[in-house]
Amino acid sequence: MVNETQQTCSTSSSSKSDGGSSSGSESSKDSSRCSTPVLDADRHERLREKMRRRQDSGDKWFSLEFFPPRTANAAVNLISRFDRMGAGGPLFIDVTWHPAGDPGSDKETSSMIIANTAVNYCGLETILHMTCCNQTKDDITGHLQKAKRLGLKNIMALRGDPVGEEWEEEVDGFNYAADLVKHIRNEFDDYFDICVAGYPKGHPEAESYEADLRHLKEKVFAGADFIITQLFFRSETFLKFVKDCQAIGITCPIIPGIFPIQGYHSLRQLVKLSKLEVPQEIKDVIEPIKDNDAAIRNYGVELAVSMCRELLDSGVVHGLHFYTLNREVATTEVLKRLGIWKEDPRRPLPWAVSAHPKRRVEDVRPIFWASRPKSYIYRTQEWDDFPNGRWGNSSSPAFGELKDYYLFYLKSKSPREELLKMWGEELTGEESVFEVFTCYISGEPNKNGYKVTCMPWNDDPLATETNLLKEQLEKVNRRGILTINSQPNINGKPSTDPIVGWGPSGGYVFQKAYLEFFTSSEIVTALLKVLKKYESRVNYHIVNVKGQNITNAPDLQPNAVTWGIFPGREIIQPTVVDPVSFLYWKDEAFALWIEQWAKLYEEESPSRMIIQYIHDNYYLVNLVDNDFPLENCLWQVVDDTFLLLN
Amino acid sequence: MVNETQQTCSTSSSSKSDGGSSSGSESSKDSSRCSTPVLDADRHERLREKMRRRQDSGDKWFSLEFFPPRTANAAVNLISRFDRMGAGGPLFIDVTWHPAGDPGSDKETSSMIIANTAVNYCGLETILHMTCCNQTKDDITGHLQKAKRLGLKNIMALRGDPVGEEWEEEVDGFNYAADLVKHIRNEFDDYFDICVAGYPKGHPEAESYEADLRHLKEKVFAGADFIITQLFFRSETFLKFVKDCQAIGITCPIIPGIFPIQGYHSLRQLVKLSKLEVPQEIKDVIEPIKDNDAAIRNYGVELAVSMCRELLDSGVVHGLHFYTLNREVATTEVLKRLGIWKEDPRRPLPWAVSAHPKRRVEDVRPIFWASRPKSYIYRTQEWDDFPNGRWGNSSSPAFGELKDYYLFYLKSKSPREELLKMWGEELTGEESVFEVFTCYISGEPNKNGYKVTCMPWNDDPLATETNLLKEQLEKVNRRGILTINSQPNINGKPSTDPIVGWGPSGGYVFQKAYLEFFTSSEIVTALLKVLKKYESRVNYHIVNVKGQNITNAPDLQPNAVTWGIFPGREIIQPTVVDPVSFLYWKDEAFALWIEQWAKLYEEESPSRMIIQYIHDNYYLVNLVDNDFPLENCLWQVVDDTFLLLN
Repeated sequence: MVNETQQTCSTSSSSKSDGGSSSGSESSKDSSRCSTPVLDADRHERLREKMRRRQDSGDKWFSLEFFPPRTANAAVNLISRFDRMGAGGPLFIDVTWHPAGDPGSDKETSSMIIANTAVNYCGLETILHMTCCNQTKDDITGHLQKAKRLGLKNIMALRGDPVGEEWEEEVDGFNYAADLVKHIRNEFDDYFDICVAGYPKGHPEAESYEADLRHLKEKVFAGADFIITQLFFRSETFLKFVKDCQAIGITCPIIPGIFPIQGYHSLRQLVKLSKLEVPQEIKDVIEPIKDNDAAIRNYGVELAVSMCRELLDSGVVHGLHFYTLNREVATTEVLKRLGIWKEDPRRPLPWAVSAHPKRRVEDVRPIFWASRPKSYIYRTQEWDDFPNGRWGNSSSPAFGELKDYYLFYLKSKSPREELLKMWGEELTGEESVFEVFTCYISGEPNKNGYKVTCMPWNDDPLATETNLLKEQLEKVNRRGILTINSQPNINGKPSTDPIVGWGPSGGYVFQKAYLEFFTSSEIVTALLKVLKKYESRVNYHIVNVKGQNITNAPDLQPNAVTWGIFPGREIIQPTVVDPVSFLYWKDEAFALWIEQWAKLYEEESPSRMIIQYIHDNYYLVNLVDNDFPLENCLWQVVDDTFLLLN
Repeated sequence: MVNETQQTCSTSSSSKSDGGSSSGSESSKDSSRCSTPVLDADRHERLREKMRRRQDSGDKWFSLEFFPPRTANAAVNLISRFDRMGAGGPLFIDVTWHPAGDPGSDKETSSMIIANTAVNYCGLETILHMTCCNQTKDDITGHLQKAKRLGLKNIMALRGDPVGEEWEEEVDGFNYAADLVKHIRNEFDDYFDICVAGYPKGHPEAESYEADLRHLKEKVFAGADFIITQLFFRSETFLKFVKDCQAIGITCPIIPGIFPIQGYHSLRQLVKLSKLEVPQEIKDVIEPIKDNDAAIRNYGVELAVSMCRELLDSGVVHGLHFYTLNREVATTEVLKRLGIWKEDPRRPLPWAVSAHPKRRVEDVRPIFWASRPKSYIYRTQEWDDFPNGRWGNSSSPAFGELKDYYLFYLKSKSPREELLKMWGEELTGEESVFEVFTCYISGEPNKNGYKVTCMPWNDDPLATETNLLKEQLEKVNRRGILTINSQPNINGKPSTDPIVGWGPSGGYVFQKAYLEFFTSSEIVTALLKVLKKYESRVNYHIVNVKGQNITNAPDLQPNAVTWGIFPGREIIQPTVVDPVSFLYWKDEAFALWIEQWAKLYEEESPSRMIIQYIHDNYYLVNLVDNDFPLENCLWQVVDDTFLLLN
C-alpha cells in the first residue's frame, strides 16, 4: 500500500543538494520559484511525447498538411484557415517546403514564415518540411538555425526532387533524406523531432518495394522519430506496409497520409506528381461525374471516411494525417464524421496560447489585446521571458513598436470595398460612427443594409461571451460610448462552462466586469465626476492620443480581471489590466482609427476628417468593477454619467 | 481635468529605455516581473517614512521600549510579550544596549539577538540601541554589520555611560553620540534610520540646558532622523523642550518618552540612574502608598494617561514612546485608555509577516507551519529570496535542518510540570493520547481536571478560525484522527471579516478546506479506499516518519488553499499545500512527538514507549477539499473511513 506512488523526493534529506545557498549569491532559484508548470501538459511536451501519450490513452488524433501560398492575400486567408481548422484540435500541422518559392526567406509566403505564423501566432504544433537535394550543408544548417530561432521544433526531413532528369549522387553531399536526418542529429542533437516519409507502395524511384523499405529503415535508424506516409487508396495497402516495416525492425509510429479526393483535376495532378496509380474502382466512379465538383467531393469524403474507419478499427492506427491541399471543407467533413474533430475544444487559458517554446510558461496577458492576440504576440516577440503566475512589476514590459505589422499579419481579412460598405461610404458626423459601432454590437444591418461583421479593433464577429452584454452595449454605443472590449463579471462558474470556462475540469473561473471604450472629452468630464462616488470599487484608466493619463490605480499595479481556481494547483490569473501596458495599447488602439478606418477615404475628405477628429480628441477609457460578487455596476456608472450630462 | 493624476509613465515612448533586450541575455527583468508590490505599503517603507505618513494622516501612534532579559527563560517570556504587545500595533519597539551583557553576541539574551527576534520572528519594526563609549571603531562597525545582516534597519545612537568616575575624551575615539551618528552615516550611508536621545531637562552632565540643546542639534545635523526623549513628569517640560529645539533649528520629529510609574522601587531606581527629580506633587501621592503596588500602578496609569492626553491635544505630538520596563499591564492599560491600542489590527496576510528587509516581498507560505510561524522563519532564514505571488516550482525550497532551535525560540512557554498535567503524568495507551487531543480541541479539562492549552504542534490555545470546526474536530480526535492543523472552506467573505479576513478592505477572501492529522496505518488503509471515490475533489498527502509518501497531487505541484481578490491588485495566494515542503515539515511534525512529549517521561517508561510507538507507526495525513464553493466534504471522508472500518 505504502509504495503506491512513492515520490522521488520522499525524504527531505534527499533534496538537500538543492539549496541552502549562501546569501547574496546569484541563484537560479529566483526564476524557478516563479515558474509553475502550466495547466496543460501539452504545452510542455514535445511532439513525439504527445504522440506517445495519445497512443497510450487510446485518444485518436489527426494532423493537417498545408503548402505555402503564392500571394500575401492568400497568406492572410491561410492564416485564418489555420485558426479555424486549429479549433478542431489537430495534434500538429505541417507546412511543405517549396524550393522554388525561396522557402527559407523572410517573405510572408515562404515555407519558413508560414510555419512561423502557425507556431507563434496560431499556437499550433507545427512541422516544417525541409528538402536537402541540391543544397549546401551551410544552407541547410542556416535554415535549421533559423527554424529553431523562430520556435519551430519539428522537421520533416525529405530528399526533395532532384533538378533535371539525370541526377547523380554528390560525394559528401546530401543525396538522401537519411543524410539530412543525420545532419540534423549531428548539428542539433535531440533538439528537433524528426519525421520522415514512408511510401506504402514503395518510392516510385526505388529499385523495389523491399529496397525502399530498407531505405526507410536507414532513415529511421539515422534518428527519425516517426514516419508519415504518402497517400494511398486502400487501407490494406497501409496495413501491409506497417506489417512489413515492423518485420524489418522499424518500431517508430507510422502515420497514414489521407487524401480526401476533392476534385477531378487535383486528383489527376497529384497522381501525376506522386506517380501513384488510382485503383480502377475509383476511376470508374469518378470518370462519369468528372464535371460535377460537388459530387466528386461527396464521393471523396465518403471514400476517405470509410478508409479511415478501417484504419482506426484495425488497432494499428492512432492518428491520421490529412493532405488538405489548403482546403477546408472536405477534410473537416471527414474529421467530423469520424468524430475526431473537437467541436468544443477545452481552452487551456481564456486566450489563445502561442506554441513557441520560449512562451511555454506564459500564462498572464493584459486584457487589451483580447481581440488582437496576434498583435500582442508580435509586439512581445522580443521578450526574453514571459509572465508566469502574475504579471508583476509594471516597469518591465517593453512592447515592440507599431510599424508595418499592419501590413501583413494584422490586416483585415475583408477587402476595402467590403469595409466601406460596413463602416460607411461616407460619414456625416460622429453619429455615423456611433451607428457603425452599434450595428457591430447588435448584428443588425446598417442603414445601407450591410451587416457590420468586423471593426478595426476586432476582425471577427462579437465573441459569445460579449453577447452576454449585448443589450447594454448596444444602448451605450448608440450614445457615443464606443466600446471595443468588455467582459461580464463571473463569480465562480465551473471551468467547463461552454461560454466563460477555461482550464482543466473540476475548477472554478472568475472575472471582474470590464469595459473599454472611446468617448468624447465631454463625456469623460462627466464620467470622472461620477467615478468619485464609486471610489475604489471601480478602477479606471483614461488616456488620450497624446498620452495624457488619468487613473486611480494604486501604484500603477496590475489588476487581475480573470482568474481560475483548480484542484491541486496554484491560482491562475491569465488576464490583467496593467496600467503600463495600457499606454502601449493606447498607441495601437488610436492608430487603428487612422490605419484601418480613416485611410479608407480620400485625404481631406469629410469622412476622413471625422475619423481624424475622433482620433485627435476622444479618450480611450477602461473601467474595472472590483466587486465581482455583486451585480456589475459599470452600466450604472455610464447611466449616471449620461444623467449628469442631461 | 486631464492632469489630475498625471503619471510618470504617461507616454509609451518614455518607457522605451526599459527593454527590447536581445534574446538569450541574462536579464534582471525575470525576477522583477515576478515581484509585485505587496499589499501593505508598511512593509516597504522605512521607519522615518512610516512616521511621516502617520504624521501626515493624523493617525496617532505609539512605540515600546524593552531591555534584554537576563536568562533564557526570561527571553522566552519576553518574546511572547513581543507577540502580545505587537498585536496592539506599535509603530516600532526598541531594545536597549547592555554593555555589561555582551550586547552584540549571539547569546539568546543579548541585545542583538533579542532585537533580531523582534524583527524576524515577531515581525516588529525594531530599533537597536547602540552605545559607543569605550569601544573601538572596529567593534562598532562589526556590531553594525551584524545588525544589518540580521535585518535590523534602525539604530538608536547613544554615548553610553563612561566606565569609571574620571572620564576623559579619547582623541579620534567615540566620545559623543554625534561621533557614532557620523560613523554610521560614513560607513553605511543612508542604510539605517538613526535615532538620538533628547533630554527635556538637559543632560545631567551637560554644562547647561542650552549647551545640551546645542549638542542635540549637533547629533541631528550629523545625520539623525528623529529624537526620542528621556522620560519627564510634566507635559509642559516636553512642550517647552520641543519649542526650544525648533528655535535653534531642529526640525526632525521629537518623540516624548513616557514612563508610567509602576511601583515605588522601580521609580526610585530609575530616578537615581537618570538623575531626574520627581516633582513634589507626585512624591506626595506616592510616599503614603509606597507599600501598595496596585495603588501605585493605578496612580501611575492615571498620571500617564492625563499627561499623554495633554501631549496629544497639544497638536505637537504624533506618537508616544513608552518605557515599559519589560512589563505589560500598565503600558497596555494606558494605551487602551488613550484609544491608540489597536484592538483588532488588520492582518495584511493570513499569517504573521516577518520584518526582515529581504522578506519584504514574501507573500506565500506552506500551510504546515501555520501554528509555528517562528519555526518556518527560522528554517527558511538562509533563503536568498522568498516566494512572491506564487510558491512556484516545488524543487526550490531547501529548509534548514532540525537542530537545536527547539532549545530556544521554539520551546514551550509552559514548564515541564505543567505540560505533564496537561498531557498526562502517565499514559495508559493510544487512547490516552486521543484524549489529550480531544481536550485541547474541546477546551474541557482532562480527567485530572487540567485544561489542555497547548500541544507540541501549537503552543497557543485553538485559533478563532479553528473554533468554526470545533465540533467535528472533537468528534474525529476522539476516534484517533489526531488533528494538528485545519481550516474551513470560505467562498468569498469580505476581507474585513473579523475571523477569516485579511488584507486591505474592499476585497474578498477564499479558502479551501484543509485537515491535517496523525493517524494509525489501519485508518490510513481505509482512508485510501474511501479517497478513491472522491477522485480529484480531494488532494491528499500521506507520509510516515520514514518518508514513505502517498499522494494524488499532480506533478508535485502546490495547491493554493488561501487566496484573496482585492481592488486594483493581482491575486494574492498567501497559503499553499506544497508537496515538497510537506516532507520537510513531516520531519519536524514527527520530531515534536519525541522532543516535546516523549521526553517528558523517563526512558523506557510505558508512557514514553506509547509516544514512541505513535511516532514510529502513525502517518501524517493532509487533505484538501478543492471544491471550495460546496460544503466541506472532509468530514464525510472521515465518516466514510470509520464506516468502512466498522
